[in-house]
Order: sequence, then C-alpha cells, then structure tokens
Amino acid sequence: MLLTYDQEKNLVHGILSASGFSDADAAVIARVIAHSDFTGVYSHGLSRLTRYMRQIKVGALNKDAEFKKVLDDKALLVFDGDNGFGIVSVNKAYDEALVKAREYGISFASGRHNANIGCGSYYGWRAAKDDVICILGCNTYAFSSPFGGADRLIGTNPIIAAVPSSEEFPIVMDISTTNVAMGKIQAAEREGKSVPAGWGKDYDGKMTTDPSKVFSLCPIADYKGYGLAVIVDALSTMLSGAAYGSDIGLFSKLEKENTGFFMILIDPSKFMPIDDFKKNVDRYIRMMKDSRKAEGVDEIFLPGEIEFRKFRENCGKGMEFSGALEKELTELAVSLGIVETDTDFEALVAAFSK
Amino acid sequence: MLLTYDQEKNLVHGILSASGFSDADAAVIARVIAHSDFTGVYSHGLSRLTRYMRQIKVGALNKDAEFKKVLDDKALLVFDGDNGFGIVSVNKAYDEALVKAREYGISFASGRHNANIGCGSYYGWRAAKDDVICILGCNTYAFSSPFGGADRLIGTNPIIAAVPSSEEFPIVMDISTTNVAMGKIQAAEREGKSVPAGWGKDYDGKMTTDPSKVFSLCPIADYKGYGLAVIVDALSTMLSGAAYGSDIGLFSKLEKENTGFFMILIDPSKFMPIDDFKKNVDRYIRMMKDSRKAEGVDEIFLPGEIEFRKFRENCGKGMEFSGALEKELTELAVSLGIVETDTDFEALVAAFSK
Repeated sequence: MLLTYDQEKNLVHGILSASGFSDADAAVIARVIAHSDFTGVYSHGLSRLTRYMRQIKVGALNKDAEFKKVLDDKALLVFDGDNGFGIVSVNKAYDEALVKAREYGISFASGRHNANIGCGSYYGWRAAKDDVICILGCNTYAFSSPFGGADRLIGTNPIIAAVPSSEEFPIVMDISTTNVAMGKIQAAEREGKSVPAGWGKDYDGKMTTDPSKVFSLCPIADYKGYGLAVIVDALSTMLSGAAYGSDIGLFSKLEKENTGFFMILIDPSKFMPIDDFKKNVDRYIRMMKDSRKAEGVDEIFLPGEIEFRKFRENCGKGMEFSGALEKELTELAVSLGIVETDTDFEALVAAFSK
Repeated sequence: MLLTYDQEKNLVHGILSASGFSDADAAVIARVIAHSDFTGVYSHGLSRLTRYMRQIKVGALNKDAEFKKVLDDKALLVFDGDNGFGIVSVNKAYDEALVKAREYGISFASGRHNANIGCGSYYGWRAAKDDVICILGCNTYAFSSPFGGADRLIGTNPIIAAVPSSEEFPIVMDISTTNVAMGKIQAAEREGKSVPAGWGKDYDGKMTTDPSKVFSLCPIADYKGYGLAVIVDALSTMLSGAAYGSDIGLFSKLEKENTGFFMILIDPSKFMPIDDFKKNVDRYIRMMKDSRKAEGVDEIFLPGEIEFRKFRENCGKGMEFSGALEKELTELAVSLGIVETDTDFEALVAAFSK
C-alpha cells in the first residue's frame, strides 16, 4: 500500500510508544525514520526498525536512556547518551548547540555512549531551517581498516554538512567515508552477484570482488578517505571520551556501540544580515546549476538536491514498501502485542492513522 | 648541493627581503616554503618561488598587502588579506583565532582576498604544537567542475586537520578534494605520458587519459569529493565575502585569486587535562599502528606520519634540489639584483647563510 509521510511517521511513533518509549523520543525517532525513507535513504528508514527493536531487546540500545550533559563551558558542550538512540541524543544535542551558536557565533557539541544517528541529512535539514551552518560527524560500528591494515577498527564515519539558502534548496552533504555501506555488500551476496573492486577487502586485507569474502570496507579515495575517517574518529571520541577502534561494540554480537559524535554549528547572521548570506548561497547554487554540462548530462545537482526532490515527490505520491517489509513490520507489531495476530499491514497503518 | 633546513629558510628569506618584503612576512613565508620541501611537498616549496615573484610583478599578489580584521565578534573573526600572500594571511589569522579558542573553547576565522596558502600541513603542525585541534580549508584557482558539469568553477579545495598528541607525532591530515593537482597532469604532458582515468576530464566533461586534453580535475570519490569541495567553498567564501566559481581570478592569466579560507580551532584543554587528551590520541595512534597489516604491507601510517618522518630524515641529511631549480633560483636572484651575474647557486646560498 502507499504510505503518506504522516502515515509512516504515525506508524513508527505508534510502535515505539507501544514499546515503552516516551512520547517525545518516539516522535523524534519517527520523524527521522520517515525523513529517511521519503528522501530515498531506505537503509535508515522503516527497514531498520526491526533491528532497532532487537537491539533494545538484547540491551544494545537503551530505550530509557538518561541523556546527560557532562560539560557546558562557553561555546562547548559534551553529552552522555547513556547508550540510547543516537537519533534522540543528536537531536537533543542540536537543541542546546543551537543556543550556544546563537550566543557565540559558533558552538561545538560532542557525545559519548552514542549509537546509530539515523539518516544524517535530517540534521542538515534542521540546521538549514534554523538558518545555521552545520558540520556533523560520528564514528560507527567498525567495518573499515586503517590504510594498509586488515583489522576492523574504523567505522563508515559519515560527514554531514549543511548551508542554508533562500529561494533555492539548502546545500546538504551527507557522505560516508567508505565507498559503500556493509548493507550493499550483503545485498550483493544475497543476490549472488560479485561486487566492484574498491568496495571491500578480505580478511587478509586484499581487494576482493566476492561479497562473501568481504571483511572490511574500503575508504573513499584510499588514504584521503582514511584521513577523513581518522579525523571524524578524533573529533567524535577524543573530546567526549567515546569508544574508538577495538573498544567499539561488535555489530555481529549486537553489542552496545559506545560510539561518539561531534557537531559544529555556525550562525551566519553574526557575519551579515541573514538574507544577504542566503542570497549569496542561492547565487552559488544557481551558478553551479546553470553552468555548462558534461556530455550526456541533463542537469547538475548540488549536494542534497536529489534528496530534496525525492522528498517532495514522495510526499506528493506516497511511498510503496515491499511486501516483505510490510510483513516484517506487521509481525513486529504482533510480537509487541500492539495488534491482533491476524492483522494485516493496512489495518496496522490504519490503527495509528487517527 | 645539499641544503640544510636553515639554509633553505635563509635563502628564501633573503630573496624575499631583497624584493621588498617586510622582515616578518619574509620570515613566515620562508618557514612555510622550507617546511614544504622538507616534508616532501615539493610543489609548494622552492619550486614555487619564481611563480610567486612573477605573480607579484604582474600585481596578482600584493607584497605590501595590508592585512585587516573586518569582524571580531566573540568566537568569530573575519579578515581581508588585501590579496597578499595566503601564507601570511592564514598565519596571522591563526594567531588571533588561537586567542579566541583559548577563551571560548572553539573559534572560527575566515578570510577574503586571499591567495595560495602554501603547504597546508604547516598550519596543522603549528596547531599541534599549540595543543589545539585545527580544521582548515580554502578555495583555490578553479580547476575542477561541479559533478556532472564541464566548466571550471571549483578549486582543488584542500582540507587540513590536526590533532595534537604526546609521545607520538600528531595526526595531521592534508588532502585536496581532487584526485591530483594540475601540476601532475602537466608533468605527465611534459614527459609524454598518459594519465590514469579518474585524474581529469576534457573540455566536454569526458574522462580522458591524454594530459594535453585535460581541462578539469576529477574530485575524489565522485559526488562525495564534489560535496566536500562545495562545503569548503561555502565555509571559505560565504562568511567572508570571498570570490567563488567564475568570480575567482584566472590562473592562466595570472589574475588575483580573490579566494577565501576558513579555520576552526578547538582547545582540548577545556574538556579535560591536556595530557589526558594527548595520551588518548597516543593510544589511538598506537592501536592503529600495532593492528594487523594487510598482506604485503610493512607498516601502517597515520595521516601526516610520512611527512613527519621525511622532515626528520631531510633535516638529518639535507635536501638536494635539481640543477634546473638551482639555475632558476640563481637567475631569479640575479634578475632581482641580489647577486652578481656570474654567481652560482652555492655562492647564492652562502650569501644568505650567515
């Protein structure tokens, strides 16, 4: 069935509420999950909900986490996420970092005992709406190796950055520092396909195209991506006391991540009238989009533009999920005792659509 | 002949002083140029001096630039470099940003009317010596295109980041967001060699391996490097009012760059005793270096480690430059009226070695 944005949000909110999440936490997680699907980042959307619930069940994620501020000094903030949802922690950190950025022009927040932050562009959109520049990164479960190494010690360490605009969409970059996520390797394995050289290395650190042999993910641009990932590691963990390298929990064992994040917010209105700033960003966007295209290219996109377009389109027509995912979520709802055993997906959605 | 670090520094200092540079400016440019060669980054070392002097001659670089502070608001700083040496501007900006970081925990500095900043790792080393984390970037002469585009609108936009350590060397990343610099393409052309696919595109935006046809440089990791370059553009130009895209001066015409830079400094001592922080960075470095190596790899390096090692080695044994470069510099000194027409390189070096 086709889901509207609100239907997906309400469905996730309902499942989380029924699982004992506070209303506020359920609301923010639901927003980020729906944002993820509607911008086309399915890996962090509805498809992840079952895994999140399994992580809660085994204690890898703490749904009753007590989010604590452990440092508040001028433009700096450090938080302890108590191994709750990274989505909740980073959103709360953002709220406080924004106040600091308004006061000092720039602020820095970092957090320990963190976990998966969900779809990174969500935070970029928030910042752009608030007319602030945002730079955000986090370490993750370790699926990559130091350059020249073979052990899994470094995460996919994404970097997100947002620049607000006026008439145009804002610029929102959201990239991992590995060429692909482990999910893409696993998908190829399920489909019996080989993967391109450059995606993954085997246990001995040799490049492989056999997805079943991939042990660690390759960084983007070799030593350059490794360099970026190391800096994301340092900014995310060294100031907050989060885990890095072999101290990070193991994904395969559903252990607590204990990872960290960092966030830098800058308030452009401290530099000039905000409208002047945003008009200049518009001009930049227009200059890039209106420039000469490479042979065979119809349109030049700015970072994040494709996601904005997908979101608008999906909000217009609704989103279709696979039958397998509909079944998985219905079974989840049944197992949580939210709905009767014989409920179908449509009825499940309807139950939370009021 | 073999030059010591001090000999190179004094030579550059002497040539710049004789050309009318202030003693302070000559000193800092000389340090950065010697640093560049001694860390193995020859492209920004002695080999660039003749071009710098030519840029001064035609007015593309202003040796009498008046470096001005145009905004000073809590943790924020903006400077106007008056189209002087980027090396001088960024070092001066660093001095003031450091004071702000000590006060607020984090500071942000940006500059307009900037030019080539020289060897990026130099600033990383400075920050590491001062026990602060540094993130630095700048836009440059435009040699790259928006992703899917064919016009030259984006620079090689480097990102430099440094994290201080204790017993180990600091972590200093210094990467451009294009796969290679234009100099590498030109070198291949001179040698009559083809270049690997992925280095450059022709005028129509098609990948080419013919260096004579390369018009624009490819970003690292396709859209990801493009995303990073756009964010570096935004941070370097939007808050300072520096030029971007088609407003940047043309390299081929020796025009003023009018580019910008940004710098973020973070003081870890606001988070914890600085020795605890640095010991944790040491532990991270050691964890990476002592981890299992990929087949055929002898040693795992951290970002910047190879440059540190080269610097130490070169300081121990001295550096040998090509006869062509020795000749070029001697001719430069003669043309500037610093030495007699029949002076050789050895005598030139000796003239400034007191």
